[in-house]
Amino acid sequence: MNLMPFGDPDDDKLREECGVFGIFKRSEAAALVTLGLHALQHRGQEAAGIVSFDGSQFHVERHAGLIGDTFTKQSVLERLPGDVAIGHTRYATTGGGGLRNVQPFFAELSSGGFAVAHNGNITNALTVQRELQRRGSIFSSTSDTETILHLVATSGARHFRDKLIDALSRLEGAFSLVGMSSKKLVGVRDPLGIRPLVLGDLDGASILASETCALDIIGATFVRDLEPGEMVIITDEGIESIFPFQSRRPRFCVFEYVYFARPDSNIEGRNVYEIRKKIGAELARENHLDADIVVPVPDSGVPAAIGYAQESGLPFELGIIRNHYVGRTFIQPGDAIRHMGVKLKHNANRGMIENKRVVLVDDSIVRGTTSQKIVQMVRDAGAAEVHMRIASPPTKASCFYGVDTPEKAKLLASRMSVEEMADFIRVDSLAFLSIDGLYRATGEPGRNALQPQFCDACFTGDYPTALTDQDGADNVRPLSLLGGAG
Amino acid sequence: MNLMPFGDPDDDKLREECGVFGIFKRSEAAALVTLGLHALQHRGQEAAGIVSFDGSQFHVERHAGLIGDTFTKQSVLERLPGDVAIGHTRYATTGGGGLRNVQPFFAELSSGGFAVAHNGNITNALTVQRELQRRGSIFSSTSDTETILHLVATSGARHFRDKLIDALSRLEGAFSLVGMSSKKLVGVRDPLGIRPLVLGDLDGASILASETCALDIIGATFVRDLEPGEMVIITDEGIESIFPFQSRRPRFCVFEYVYFARPDSNIEGRNVYEIRKKIGAELARENHLDADIVVPVPDSGVPAAIGYAQESGLPFELGIIRNHYVGRTFIQPGDAIRHMGVKLKHNANRGMIENKRVVLVDDSIVRGTTSQKIVQMVRDAGAAEVHMRIASPPTKASCFYGVDTPEKAKLLASRMSVEEMADFIRVDSLAFLSIDGLYRATGEPGRNALQPQFCDACFTGDYPTALTDQDGADNVRPLSLLGGAG
Amino acid sequence: MNLMPFGDPDDDKLREECGVFGIFKRSEAAALVTLGLHALQHRGQEAAGIVSFDGSQFHVERHAGLIGDTFTKQSVLERLPGDVAIGHTRYATTGGGGLRNVQPFFAELSSGGFAVAHNGNITNALTVQRELQRRGSIFSSTSDTETILHLVATSGARHFRDKLIDALSRLEGAFSLVGMSSKKLVGVRDPLGIRPLVLGDLDGASILASETCALDIIGATFVRDLEPGEMVIITDEGIESIFPFQSRRPRFCVFEYVYFARPDSNIEGRNVYEIRKKIGAELARENHLDADIVVPVPDSGVPAAIGYAQESGLPFELGIIRNHYVGRTFIQPGDAIRHMGVKLKHNANRGMIENKRVVLVDDSIVRGTTSQKIVQMVRDAGAAEVHMRIASPPTKASCFYGVDTPEKAKLLASRMSVEEMADFIRVDSLAFLSIDGLYRATGEPGRNALQPQFCDACFTGDYPTALTDQDGADNVRPLSLLGGAG
Amino acid sequence: MNLMPFGDPDDDKLREECGVFGIFKRSEAAALVTLGLHALQHRGQEAAGIVSFDGSQFHVERHAGLIGDTFTKQSVLERLPGDVAIGHTRYATTGGGGLRNVQPFFAELSSGGFAVAHNGNITNALTVQRELQRRGSIFSSTSDTETILHLVATSGARHFRDKLIDALSRLEGAFSLVGMSSKKLVGVRDPLGIRPLVLGDLDGASILASETCALDIIGATFVRDLEPGEMVIITDEGIESIFPFQSRRPRFCVFEYVYFARPDSNIEGRNVYEIRKKIGAELARENHLDADIVVPVPDSGVPAAIGYAQESGLPFELGIIRNHYVGRTFIQPGDAIRHMGVKLKHNANRGMIENKRVVLVDDSIVRGTTSQKIVQMVRDAGAAEVHMRIASPPTKASCFYGVDTPEKAKLLASRMSVEEMADFIRVDSLAFLSIDGLYRATGEPGRNALQPQFCDACFTGDYPTALTDQDGADNVRPLSLLGGAG
Repeated sequence: MNLMPFGDPDDDKLREECGVFGIFKRSEAAALVTLGLHALQHRGQEAAGIVSFDGSQFHVERHAGLIGDTFTKQSVLERLPGDVAIGHTRYATTGGGGLRNVQPFFAELSSGGFAVAHNGNITNALTVQRELQRRGSIFSSTSDTETILHLVATSGARHFRDKLIDALSRLEGAFSLVGMSSKKLVGVRDPLGIRPLVLGDLDGASILASETCALDIIGATFVRDLEPGEMVIITDEGIESIFPFQSRRPRFCVFEYVYFARPDSNIEGRNVYEIRKKIGAELARENHLDADIVVPVPDSGVPAAIGYAQESGLPFELGIIRNHYVGRTFIQPGDAIRHMGVKLKHNANRGMIENKRVVLVDDSIVRGTTSQKIVQMVRDAGAAEVHMRIASPPTKASCFYGVDTPEKAKLLASRMSVEEMADFIRVDSLAFLSIDGLYRATGEPGRNALQPQFCDACFTGDYPTALTDQDGADNVRPLSLLGGAG
Repeated sequence: MNLMPFGDPDDDKLREECGVFGIFKRSEAAALVTLGLHALQHRGQEAAGIVSFDGSQFHVERHAGLIGDTFTKQSVLERLPGDVAIGHTRYATTGGGGLRNVQPFFAELSSGGFAVAHNGNITNALTVQRELQRRGSIFSSTSDTETILHLVATSGARHFRDKLIDALSRLEGAFSLVGMSSKKLVGVRDPLGIRPLVLGDLDGASILASETCALDIIGATFVRDLEPGEMVIITDEGIESIFPFQSRRPRFCVFEYVYFARPDSNIEGRNVYEIRKKIGAELARENHLDADIVVPVPDSGVPAAIGYAQESGLPFELGIIRNHYVGRTFIQPGDAIRHMGVKLKHNANRGMIENKRVVLVDDSIVRGTTSQKIVQMVRDAGAAEVHMRIASPPTKASCFYGVDTPEKAKLLASRMSVEEMADFIRVDSLAFLSIDGLYRATGEPGRNALQPQFCDACFTGDYPTALTDQDGADNVRPLSLLGGAG
Repeated sequence: MNLMPFGDPDDDKLREECGVFGIFKRSEAAALVTLGLHALQHRGQEAAGIVSFDGSQFHVERHAGLIGDTFTKQSVLERLPGDVAIGHTRYATTGGGGLRNVQPFFAELSSGGFAVAHNGNITNALTVQRELQRRGSIFSSTSDTETILHLVATSGARHFRDKLIDALSRLEGAFSLVGMSSKKLVGVRDPLGIRPLVLGDLDGASILASETCALDIIGATFVRDLEPGEMVIITDEGIESIFPFQSRRPRFCVFEYVYFARPDSNIEGRNVYEIRKKIGAELARENHLDADIVVPVPDSGVPAAIGYAQESGLPFELGIIRNHYVGRTFIQPGDAIRHMGVKLKHNANRGMIENKRVVLVDDSIVRGTTSQKIVQMVRDAGAAEVHMRIASPPTKASCFYGVDTPEKAKLLASRMSVEEMADFIRVDSLAFLSIDGLYRATGEPGRNALQPQFCDACFTGDYPTALTDQDGADNVRPLSLLGGAG
Repeated sequence: MNLMPFGDPDDDKLREECGVFGIFKRSEAAALVTLGLHALQHRGQEAAGIVSFDGSQFHVERHAGLIGDTFTKQSVLERLPGDVAIGHTRYATTGGGGLRNVQPFFAELSSGGFAVAHNGNITNALTVQRELQRRGSIFSSTSDTETILHLVATSGARHFRDKLIDALSRLEGAFSLVGMSSKKLVGVRDPLGIRPLVLGDLDGASILASETCALDIIGATFVRDLEPGEMVIITDEGIESIFPFQSRRPRFCVFEYVYFARPDSNIEGRNVYEIRKKIGAELARENHLDADIVVPVPDSGVPAAIGYAQESGLPFELGIIRNHYVGRTFIQPGDAIRHMGVKLKHNANRGMIENKRVVLVDDSIVRGTTSQKIVQMVRDAGAAEVHMRIASPPTKASCFYGVDTPEKAKLLASRMSVEEMADFIRVDSLAFLSIDGLYRATGEPGRNALQPQFCDACFTGDYPTALTDQDGADNVRPLSLLGGAG
């Protein structure tokens, strides 16, 4: 058994698995993609890739590690010449495949080169892959993104655009993708619009990005969100928008507002930070509490804690300090250290907490192990009472749409009541935001049970698509079957 | 010209240069020092070293990089056996010396092995070094810490303790040091007590550390601050305390409260976070202002902004979002990117800022270049007015006591009035905390001009020691002469 | 312009491009493949790969660098469990593909996993690849070996063996390949048998290897050479041998005897070292010469020089000393060094050479630039006369069968007569072995011009296969079109 | 237990431990030192260092690994500007000191910078070091070279030259050193001249080097050997030669001729290759033998084998082939491989050896373990008889003068008779060269027992200097006390 590894508390979070970025006809395209991916680093920290096109050739680079350690090197950027480029940042490089699974994927098709990167997860990828293998396709990765490439390659359609539509029509699940050929930059959102994708503009050069914060970093203008089911085709002639798929009622992922997206991004007209503050305010309204201070679990609990404090009138205080100097290696202590309650990432600020009744605000509870440690730490620092308030409903079902969730049985809320969870993490009281409260914070009147406005499957188990590869066993961890793109 | 490098805004800060940690007679000593140094990482990020003693031999390891990337490796810790160890973390490895300048320094003296690490800077080190060279001493580094070692080695005193006292008595400047021999762990603070040093206890094993946060990480108990001028000698017989130097009125570094120390540390009985909140409150009281929101420059401006908001009644909001995924390499853009105002580390949260009158709170202004960029970013996000409030007086003189300051001429406040500075950074108004306000925030009635309670030389130019190596030229950057320890 | 890089003289050689090794049902299979590839390192030094099968899963590792630096690491071998494995060592990792082009190639076909590695070059690979792309195959490398994999994947045949025969029947060129599925180890030599492949046995476990020296390293027994056009299928039931291709008169590569193979290998019943000595003896007989000493250009000229000395009665002497401590980086000198005639790899032994009439023996002349430098070095050391004797006929045509040759125009013999070449390298006399002399040294009575016993295209331009991808332009460097396997 | 590691057979050799090189007033000095050290790589492969002086500053670089991998990098050479430089290559970086023990050593003395590198070993270094520590000197390494530096630093003499003479006069043992200050390049050989040192010239720039092969690589002219006890001082004024030490009868190391020096070097007027051939001829004369072929153990046995073959009339054949593609890592096999007799570096050439009576020629036997394996390999290849002939007398005493020898008890000849050794390595016969035969091969009439012409302590136990640090226990491995320079 190891110590809580450096960086650990974030391991007890759901993990968004990908961010995408593309730019069309702008000098130093790869450098701009690099900057965009840096702004999207919260959507995937373990590996990234960029493909550029220089007018005659495609160039591919894939690296494990943070953007700021890899693609910012001059030597790397020099290997990515051209004025069109797309990029992808990714949470996991799990499995033996190493860099083989890092996107974008690129292939020289008979019609020319094509590169694609996507955020989301194809829920029938395994089924489609087996079919493609039977007709002779060879897969060089375990990523569902490669499935898209093979579907395009083997499509009987004549024109490239039709091949792509043909391919995507075969897929179930979530995908917000960017693709490029020698003449086009393409962006597509699946018909449910589960993952975000926005269109931007930099002095006339079109940009596609997962979130608006990636436009801000280079001073680009936000144009609009892509619509669910929309495909935009960007060429020298301009931007064409089509809706090639069967239309469906949109179900944007509500957890993007709770945790995944960056607080300074705007998604579908809403500022993420403001929604999180409203979530905190709803939380305060739903459960009144006498206490002395409101303390966020940093950093993800901060906006909700501010909203909670403003609504409740209690003071907002930094009662837990985060050490931002994380490292990459683990310490493997012997017995003398193991049971010491080492706090590598967080420390309670005793001077602020001692003898206080503390409201702790966090975004969610996944396994509950980190919550347990943090509560203990706050108690050890002398808190009189510890009350935990969670800025979302209990997380009790796996996500199959591009989020790394533990298998269902490991989700604390899938096997315990709120009271049992309170005992487990040893708080004086525990409350989650109601599902209607969450919807209200986004501006909706509440959840429409017949036609829910969002994908909230992780809270409700109500999956908006077929899960062909899962064959009903919803507590199987989906990514163990076929690596989702992110 | 490069882009604002990744991690840049912090480059426009004064830099504390060292943290120290030592532990006596506890199994896995080096692992515990590693954890302690990780908690002190804010005092120096570029290199670290640990010396351990296993009962018969000393072991030395020095590595460039973050603790969590280097000393947490099992292979490194296995090379540091023993139950006594000291460690040091350091800001800079500048100069050609590379790891040669990384502390602790160790030497096999005729009386046995001795290792020493210190936080501070010896202001007559160069003068003493030249003298030692004339009598045949060979220096293997350019660090002033090695000077201490040579003074001990060449002391005519008979016993080890007297050699050390003899050596330290020759020094001017600031030093909070930890040392170890085969039988002892020693801690010393210079007579002015410029840098912090605390004594802790872990189930009977004594600990020395720069700050209390390094005790917290391993669950150790805080015993007390060392007194200015005190030497504690920890052996199997217990802890002996002596005061071997001529007594002087203490002058603790007030900037430790403003910026250097971690907010969750307690120094000389005061909680750092609380003092920073009080600084914010003083700032609000000294300069009343009509505005809509209080926005901290993250992360260092946060506690003062909270204090300011609570005192002024204005809402505290995260109007600037920090990207914590920093990297280590620079991007070197061509013309197309260079003038784009790229924001690698900070982004304004437009949804919160647009059309607001913003009070920006930061801890200090050094060169002013980062403030300028941040103000511009906030304006670009649509702020109606931008008012900057600084949680300390104008920084207008270099520090010679273990802080990396630019030469005096580069300090914005050394060559501009407050009005000129406001113009330079383009704010609607700019105000600094008064020196008396700063003292009040620490609990003093104000600054005693005849006998100042703190070292505040960076604000006042009033240096509490001789500066022998500087020969009067106070705008020479001190560390260019001889590498200070930190 | 750089100095002659470290290791340079060998750059002026033809380069064999691959070695293969496979073993069936023997514990620690990957470690044995590692040892076999180490013995075959002379057939490719830049990268290597191994695929193992552990009874349920295939494992793939590819690394750039020498076997002894990469696959010998315990951590690498632990990632290659199982008792069946094949491996490949390779000369070049040229092109942007990096490790993508390193063999063996592996694919999960609908019929199960299949891995393949080959030595040789497919001369219609590009043509076949284009056809495959038109039907939807996606290539992840530029290696002709991947073409084999796709042909197997898309074959309409029912059984795996028939798919493989079907695929190989489509190919022109040279291939000695090893392949493995979950149940079989397969070895195939093309109908001309251009490259070597032998069958060995280690206590009942079957082995396939490019040369017998790879059997010796692990103490395995040599069983026999595979026949040209033979396919052996090794399973738990035993070894099956079939001849599925149209029969042709064999044309083994005669340059394997001249330079490529290791001197301690036996190929088709002949010991390579002995043939090289006989080549030297033929050379002495063909051109009598009065001289004082016979000096090999180390190391490749040594056996022929020994044979020459024994036949001529002149003493064999080490007149040139080779520095075996080669490195990997280049020195880029300024003007002061550039024209100094630096000798990084070879040095003339002046004490032995001064005032002597020297017969220099080398295996071949490619561009002639190294010969020029070596002759100058021997002259500078005081030789009275320098006579060059080459252990093969003039090399005047490119090889398209797995050897890295310069384009034809860069081959010295393609544009100069022997007299002109003698002038160019500045020797007192120059002689090459006759083509009949070379055949005689192998035990043949001479070259049968109508039905040559060997492939000698590099000497004669007489190519034994179609060169479909070359469209007649035989001075195009073949590997620039499509990366040959080796 | 590991396999015979890659590169192992050479581990059963005595190891010369250092080579030195210096150049005065020539542009690109460090690049020329790099080339010189590359030519001296056989004298130490594990680490190297260079110090240069650019007219105002000294620059130091130290790297582990081969010269051709480290100092040939442009970035490294750019950090070594100037026209005066010295360098050192070294066998071992054993011990915890890592690069701390890599020479040259440099110190800023009160009189200015001084760098020194030496080949040899100081036999009273430990004693002197303890004395220096008592007076306050701090050692940063465990190398005896640092002792020289401290003796210079603490010398009471007034001028630099006198300080150096003063320092060297305190030393016992072997030293061929090069040193440099801001104005001088200095070369010194100890009074016995145990290690070589030569003076060269490159268009007027003076050079000092361990062997002449280091002059050849850059086209420099050999001027002369330094005399035993000579100090040359090279300045802008020219070369001054003095003999400051008490005169003694020279005792050059005879093992330099047997194995250490490169065959193309000339030492004290003798060509090393020719002496080795004469050694082989003596060996043939001393022990007549009926056999079929003479086979060298490559590479060190080659010259003697050629001499043996020419004298005996038997054919010289490459019956053992060496794999020059060595690597750096070990393979750790399980049981299935361990007892297989794996031959990583050498392979018997069965085609040449089978049914032959073989004379194996090697330079020396140290532990005998490698000889045992090689004999077994030759027997396994079918040799009818195996006769071992050794080109030196039995090695039965440790060297204390810069050679890494096992402790005496591990030397096979220290505990077995020749007959017992023959049994141990399982040969049909074994013979060593007589000590007089060895002297005859160098041109002497035989060994003068009263005043031996060479240092032959490893064969005779007759040490020409005091061994102060050894206190009589001559089977203690000397370097375990204090790291010798080489």
